[in-house]
Amino acid sequence: MSTALFTDRYELTMAAAALADGTAQRACVFEVFARRLPEGRRYGVVAGTARLLESIERFRFGEQELAMLDGVVDDDTLGWLAEYRFSGDIDGYPEGELYFPGSPILTVSGTFADAVLLETLALSILNHDSAVASAAARMVTAAAGRPIIEMGSRRTHEAAAVASARATYLAGFSTTSNLEAQRRHGIPTAGTAAHAWVLLHDDELSAFTSQVKALGSDTTLLVDTYDIRRGVERAVEAAGTGLGAIRIDSGDLGELARQAREQLDALGATGTKIVLSGDLDEYAIASLRAEPVDSYGVGTSVVTGSGAPTAGMVYKLVEVDGRPVAKRSESKESRGGRKSAVRRYKPTGTAIEEVVHPFSAPPELGPHDRVVPIPLVRDGEQVAGLPNLEQSREHLRSALVSVPWEGLKLSRGEPALPTVFEGV
Amino acid sequence: MSTALFTDRYELTMAAAALADGTAQRACVFEVFARRLPEGRRYGVVAGTARLLESIERFRFGEQELAMLDGVVDDDTLGWLAEYRFSGDIDGYPEGELYFPGSPILTVSGTFADAVLLETLALSILNHDSAVASAAARMVTAAAGRPIIEMGSRRTHEAAAVASARATYLAGFSTTSNLEAQRRHGIPTAGTAAHAWVLLHDDELSAFTSQVKALGSDTTLLVDTYDIRRGVERAVEAAGTGLGAIRIDSGDLGELARQAREQLDALGATGTKIVLSGDLDEYAIASLRAEPVDSYGVGTSVVTGSGAPTAGMVYKLVEVDGRPVAKRSESKESRGGRKSAVRRYKPTGTAIEEVVHPFSAPPELGPHDRVVPIPLVRDGEQVAGLPNLEQSREHLRSALVSVPWEGLKLSRGEPALPTVFEGV
Repeated sequence: MSTALFTDRYELTMAAAALADGTAQRACVFEVFARRLPEGRRYGVVAGTARLLESIERFRFGEQELAMLDGVVDDDTLGWLAEYRFSGDIDGYPEGELYFPGSPILTVSGTFADAVLLETLALSILNHDSAVASAAARMVTAAAGRPIIEMGSRRTHEAAAVASARATYLAGFSTTSNLEAQRRHGIPTAGTAAHAWVLLHDDELSAFTSQVKALGSDTTLLVDTYDIRRGVERAVEAAGTGLGAIRIDSGDLGELARQAREQLDALGATGTKIVLSGDLDEYAIASLRAEPVDSYGVGTSVVTGSGAPTAGMVYKLVEVDGRPVAKRSESKESRGGRKSAVRRYKPTGTAIEEVVHPFSAPPELGPHDRVVPIPLVRDGEQVAGLPNLEQSREHLRSALVSVPWEGLKLSRGEPALPTVFEGV
Repeated sequence: MSTALFTDRYELTMAAAALADGTAQRACVFEVFARRLPEGRRYGVVAGTARLLESIERFRFGEQELAMLDGVVDDDTLGWLAEYRFSGDIDGYPEGELYFPGSPILTVSGTFADAVLLETLALSILNHDSAVASAAARMVTAAAGRPIIEMGSRRTHEAAAVASARATYLAGFSTTSNLEAQRRHGIPTAGTAAHAWVLLHDDELSAFTSQVKALGSDTTLLVDTYDIRRGVERAVEAAGTGLGAIRIDSGDLGELARQAREQLDALGATGTKIVLSGDLDEYAIASLRAEPVDSYGVGTSVVTGSGAPTAGMVYKLVEVDGRPVAKRSESKESRGGRKSAVRRYKPTGTAIEEVVHPFSAPPELGPHDRVVPIPLVRDGEQVAGLPNLEQSREHLRSALVSVPWEGLKLSRGEPALPTVFEGV
């Protein structure tokens, strides 16, 4: 399916006007960055880059798209669009990379007409996926090694749900409930059962017995439809002491987990795990750290970015024919010129600062420093050997280890690394 | 494209287990409702129903979907899924209807296996679209008749952007920037120009002149790239006093609008309109009511539901073989039994209360009262003559007129109508 109409009308009318006045062919550089992190957040996580590159490959104007644009732009532009494919270069932070205010997350170089068309698509994907991954990474930190199942599909747009599952997996969640995410992105799926399953049956015991018969004793039984204490009792009665797990979805989760653990152990089900769900966010997860929990199910909070449902990145023209350009009126001022970034590290591996510099004037690299952006597209073609999802997941894991310890705190604070603008 | 995998894994494993133990054929009723409105909101707006019905028609398991589910469910279930199409009944609040805590927004009746599969799809669509429409309706009220352009595509998932454009139009926005929304849903599109357009050119005047030449003097010129006062001057110089509109996207919008109006009038451009944009939400729009603004461009706030990015609706089993069922543990208690709702009105047309009652025991209807849900699907087929988007838009407009005046206040408060549970 073409992605060409996931675009704002003004990009096409600007391209049309630029084709008419000859500026369409000017060499331009657009930059994606976030002016600030969401209130109190200490880092952001880049996500969506691979989805974006794949979507750019499908950014073509076929008959259907051109028919719809008849009347929006003139015939010359329609002819130009019919031949359009992005033929410029893209550099950017790899997926799973941390970003900070002003980090040049994506740099799109090409003619004005080539590059302006990608604005909305690039921002939609990066803003959504990064918002979800940034929230998810905090939850993974809070869970301190306990696995998290993503189960938020029902709380977000049906297609956003698939991208959310991918972004949370990138951030370290272990599985998702979303089947399309398994098909499209290979994310492992998991699932338990709903209250409807218990209510469907004549009694709780027959619901559990039937689930165990169909899905094996390794399944997860949902024990809070009626009375949790009796639910746990019946769960072990139905599955035996080899029961995989129980899930508790409501109530005072910490207290209930403690009681359930004691009860399970007393019944001999010492290996049966406890899954908690029900409006969990990073703070709730952190508060359960001392409890006998084995894994978490997280829905609403992660797919809505836990209070920051969009990453707030912008796509700004920074260079025209080699000349830096920038908006200059009172507010929302920007820094012109193509930029790149270096992250500086202590010899111990702890990151110190994010240096944003003119692309043409890189600072000297210390022995532990690292250039952050990587080449993504050259002459319209994806660079070979880009990191896959598992590699991006590992990249984020190590990037988080490199952050100074205060940077991983859930409380509100300053960015974990200061952004130093050198010469820009 | 099939929508069948926009589903949580547990719905399929529950269907499989129910096929195995014979409960799959039990007659079930599932109900979609919201336990509460987002904090302080006075009403919600139902949106997404038409998208849901269309998506249910495409909810089929083809070869690709079945291949992916091999290993998730057993062969018998795969065979059953291959033949699956929803064959039950659906009733619900029409799009554009107001809802309140406990309103039975959607009622799905069918066998357990038939109906359980639709849970995630129904909730994804209704939760997303209703969250956006509910926020948008407040902005329309705040704008008090001035048109609003939806321009938030870049701040949400690329497919959610299309649904958001539709939901905001339903709620009374006049246009969207999203081209796919025009193609797919017939929403009128509009657009201005970006700062990139001005920066691309050697100076502001040539950018404006060129835009006017390509798009006509009826276009909207963005005047805040450099100095707004000089921007307005050049805009009129480029387009003449017949210039369509100017847009201001940053700074103290009220003050700038007043200055620009004076300046435009002094230059003789008395018919030139003023479009304001830049982080507007319902409160900012309301605060601009006294200013000389002609229309608003709204992005981030509306596509993220202005603080409530999901409507929080749930899909609960309420009846099995004619017997009411409900979760009964301490928290998240539900009311069992199939329900319907009547809205009571004063003779003046002002709504008084939302009466939620057992489906089988409707209350007496007063001369001004109204049954809220309508039949949507019978035996798997969409009912003929369902309201189209324009009719739903008009429905919401009249529904809002019927709300007691305090119910339209933007400040936090109680629901505009109390929900009265009669006999449930």
